[in-house]
Amino acid sequence: MKGLIVVKIGGSEGIDLDAVCEDVAGLAAEGRPLILIHGGSSETNRVAEALGHPPQFVTSPSGYTSRLTDRRTLEIFEMVYCGRINKEIVEKLQRRGVNALGLSGIDGRIWSGPRKKAIRALENGRARIIRDTYTGRVDLVNSDLLALLLDAGYLPVLTPPAISGEGEAINVDGDRAAAATAVAMGAKTLLILSNVPGVLADFPHESSLIREIREEEIESIAQTAAQGRMRIKLLAAQEALAGEVSHVLLGDARCDAPISRALTGEGTLIHKKAHGS
Amino acid sequence: MKGLIVVKIGGSEGIDLDAVCEDVAGLAAEGRPLILIHGGSSETNRVAEALGHPPQFVTSPSGYTSRLTDRRTLEIFEMVYCGRINKEIVEKLQRRGVNALGLSGIDGRIWSGPRKKAIRALENGRARIIRDTYTGRVDLVNSDLLALLLDAGYLPVLTPPAISGEGEAINVDGDRAAAATAVAMGAKTLLILSNVPGVLADFPHESSLIREIREEEIESIAQTAAQGRMRIKLLAAQEALAGEVSHVLLGDARCDAPISRALTGEGTLIHKKAHGS
Repeated sequence: MKGLIVVKIGGSEGIDLDAVCEDVAGLAAEGRPLILIHGGSSETNRVAEALGHPPQFVTSPSGYTSRLTDRRTLEIFEMVYCGRINKEIVEKLQRRGVNALGLSGIDGRIWSGPRKKAIRALENGRARIIRDTYTGRVDLVNSDLLALLLDAGYLPVLTPPAISGEGEAINVDGDRAAAATAVAMGAKTLLILSNVPGVLADFPHESSLIREIREEEIESIAQTAAQGRMRIKLLAAQEALAGEVSHVLLGDARCDAPISRALTGEGTLIHKKAHGS
Repeated sequence: MKGLIVVKIGGSEGIDLDAVCEDVAGLAAEGRPLILIHGGSSETNRVAEALGHPPQFVTSPSGYTSRLTDRRTLEIFEMVYCGRINKEIVEKLQRRGVNALGLSGIDGRIWSGPRKKAIRALENGRARIIRDTYTGRVDLVNSDLLALLLDAGYLPVLTPPAISGEGEAINVDGDRAAAATAVAMGAKTLLILSNVPGVLADFPHESSLIREIREEEIESIAQTAAQGRMRIKLLAAQEALAGEVSHVLLGDARCDAPISRALTGEGTLIHKKAHGS
């Protein structure tokens, strides 16, 4: 879809949803088609603690950390992501005159893919197999449904979980789901906003921001510079650029006008070819 | 829309969501267009207790009881209705091959209407004014959006809250929202299923089921026979029949095939004219 931007907003502490929605409203008023995708991890942790089912995280042998999602965790996850945060964002946009419409990946099978029946996790240096988790990945995006809604003037606000072939809700990574969505919708630009200014060469020193990364540099930077959640954002960027996305922007969502700032060059720009070549 | 049925499922104890979804899947496979609307009150009470914000209810001077919805209650309400129950139903339908799509009334402004800035409540026989509640009623249904989704083959699963003119989420009665939806969509049949067999002349004796009520009898039955939540269901029936709906069925959702049973005459039938005339 021409001019479409896919924006992913993280769910960590410090993210200013009012600033995000104000910025979205400005872009929507200019007629810019936009899909918003969000997380909700820190609020999920709080609610899970309050409900007596504290969050657990696992690290895969390849070094990625993810939420251990048993059935009860999935229910709490859906309460917070689909109920609390999704509707908060939709309401903030509606208050600003944007006809937002919130959906999870299971609604209309927007995001579908296989469930991992078992995952491998490192524990004290040893790998163990964990079963009965509700996690997976997005292989297919229902772009017809998203196009139907965009064409009718709605702004889709999307959130995990996704859905498996057997119709089970599965926890998927939001950054990678955003990349799959951008690719499926033919968006040229993907924004991934979180609570850091972008990729930092020397984490957590914000002055060490890397302003530009070429596609072929992603691997080496992911291994040396990128910590924690940033590694998976770089993986998402790689997946987006492997499709028809030409620019991935990693920006800061703790400030005013976070989308416009990222679009005008703040943060880290990851692109297909050497800039200016 | 031709042949469309609007089905409202309550959120009280005892309701069998698997039986409801199995029945919906059967009707959907026959090509019957259907909109499902649900509640979530008993689970909301449990989660509100667990999160340390216990539910409160108020009774209006005209005798209707409703949830006192401050901002924190609204957030918990959205977590349970839009996150927990809505996604549970969508997942149960997807597992049965139905392409369900869950939305709240704030999404795409499906249900909009005025927020009551203050409500009158009876307390120990005295009326008092309560402000800062997020409640209201549905005046307008976005039937274009629902028709767009139905025409594209999706089964809409709807839940409160609705949205005010100012873009605030407001708690609305689900039965009355279902009635407004049936009227706006030109449905001839509205089903309201809960955890009783229908209207009981002598509550809670289930053998006192009233099998048939004519439109002009609703008022007197509401005053004599109907207890608690049933009064508002009769009000919803009245509002539906005042539109183009010809049959309202009040049935039991604690059994197998609850929708099919209600359609074949179990429960209470409320209709416009004397049956058979």
